Amino acid sequence: MRALVFDRNLAFRDDYPDPVATPGESIVRVSVAGICGTDLEIARGYMQFRGVPGHEFAGRVVESQNAALRGKRVVGEINAGCGRCAICSAGLARHCPNRTVLGILGRDGAFAEFLRLPDINLIPIPDSIPDDIAVFAEPLAAAYEIFEQVHLARNQTIAVLGDGRLGALALKGEKYLPIVAGHHKEKLARLAELGLDTVDESSLRDKFDVVIECSGNGSGFRRAIELVRPRGKIILKSTAAATAEINLAPIVVNEISVIGSRCGRFQPALDALAAGKIDPRPLIDGTFALDNENGMAAFETTKNPLNFKILLRAP
Amino acid sequence: MRALVFDRNLAFRDDYPDPVATPGESIVRVSVAGICGTDLEIARGYMQFRGVPGHEFAGRVVESQNAALRGKRVVGEINAGCGRCAICSAGLARHCPNRTVLGILGRDGAFAEFLRLPDINLIPIPDSIPDDIAVFAEPLAAAYEIFEQVHLARNQTIAVLGDGRLGALALKGEKYLPIVAGHHKEKLARLAELGLDTVDESSLRDKFDVVIECSGNGSGFRRAIELVRPRGKIILKSTAAATAEINLAPIVVNEISVIGSRCGRFQPALDALAAGKIDPRPLIDGTFALDNENGMAAFETTKNPLNFKILLRAP
Repeated sequence: MRALVFDRNLAFRDDYPDPVATPGESIVRVSVAGICGTDLEIARGYMQFRGVPGHEFAGRVVESQNAALRGKRVVGEINAGCGRCAICSAGLARHCPNRTVLGILGRDGAFAEFLRLPDINLIPIPDSIPDDIAVFAEPLAAAYEIFEQVHLARNQTIAVLGDGRLGALALKGEKYLPIVAGHHKEKLARLAELGLDTVDESSLRDKFDVVIECSGNGSGFRRAIELVRPRGKIILKSTAAATAEINLAPIVVNEISVIGSRCGRFQPALDALAAGKIDPRPLIDGTFALDNENGMAAFETTKNPLNFKILLRAP
Repeated sequence: MRALVFDRNLAFRDDYPDPVATPGESIVRVSVAGICGTDLEIARGYMQFRGVPGHEFAGRVVESQNAALRGKRVVGEINAGCGRCAICSAGLARHCPNRTVLGILGRDGAFAEFLRLPDINLIPIPDSIPDDIAVFAEPLAAAYEIFEQVHLARNQTIAVLGDGRLGALALKGEKYLPIVAGHHKEKLARLAELGLDTVDESSLRDKFDVVIECSGNGSGFRRAIELVRPRGKIILKSTAAATAEINLAPIVVNEISVIGSRCGRFQPALDALAAGKIDPRPLIDGTFALDNENGMAAFETTKNPLNFKILLRAP
């Protein structure tokens, strides 16, 4: 099958072996996949991943032992737990120490014609949501994870540091009051058009009740510490952040809580998309075919920091 | 008066000016003061403090406009808020941006014959508690702060990293199950005699629900990240920790919560001491007179990592 494959370098291949269905795991034909910052990190060696990256997708089940799934349009939770350990039993398969993660850890991902995921990971897409919207379920679920981890109050001041455009939209959709702080005028202007409050990050002087750090680098965390009020909360979303020199004293002195936040459940995100609380389509900056000509170009285009979301579409 | 004074160097002086009572602030004759790690840091330049360090004390009110305080034995909350800002109004004077802090920030402290604190900071000591026990109210309050910030369950596994002997005792006193992880055989043996579970830190392999980091250095935080389970909590107590190289990715991937924790309310600590839940006296490794001969020796003795607590007693 066609796929983008990372093995020291990322390359398009048209001879990558098709995934084979196993008991309890179905095959999905990918219709559209999103490229995110983690994918760029993986292409730089993050997680020592080898294989097909990609973990944001919408597709259709083409092979399954589960009749309820066959032929269905689906999205999929990306973490596949072992299903046997204490953590899986506690309902935290996303944290299973033996897990595989679609396109990130020990499991080929979505930048391909087909992928394989456990049946229990697959979630049918409501008919009202086209694939181009459903493909945002994964990053939106990561945003909704914040609501599951932290009690936010409606009147709290919330700063989103970095490119957390989707998280900011989710907050706005749930009637919180985020302000998006960034460096790129053009992006901030586009987010303002979507109804978000925006501000140049360097001009921020206020202290916020909650700072959501998704800038993807350690200096963003240092800035978050500066911007949060005493007893405030920092939600840390930057998975691929490099090691950074950090002075922990202000966290202690100001009794700040830092809450690491990664993937979330898909259902709240799908529900929000179905209810029209969020329309992520204005964030799409390009859709590229998964072929020899365009596959790599999609990745290159994602590297442009002025772009929000680049999609790969099955040929 | 006699005092240990820090001004580029720490020195004993017998000519330091007495504090003068002001409206709303009383004078306390210090009977006993405890030296802690923060004081050692201050003597190395932490907080750019100049003046009399020391923030753990028991004493007697010798001058006050408040008749209810005059002549009373007291301990004192060390943070003096402005009383006017929004943070003070919210009951968080400990986080007032304009605060002074006894012996730490803009206010002379307890390594002296007399100190001054706002009347509202002073808390009478129950008759049943001698000064040598009451002097532990401040560090114990810092331990009890954990209970105010974090919901701990009785069956959770808790590791205390570093010299958090008092915190571990507080946990034990409240029927939690801490294990104290350290490097010094002699200290661990003494803590074991007090009924605490102890372990050599380097031998720890398990994952804990809660890790309390009070080792005082950045490598302790890195170790805490290794030792906490996914979705677990790290309580960060090391105020004076230097800048450290930290990889934030595991915090995000494992959705760890890091909760900075500093000073706490005194009353729960005093109540626990009065109820005999904790007897900190076995932790006293020496009591030195505040005089020319012994004042500095007390500080030097505190630097020995095998000692738990050194006290200074009024001459």
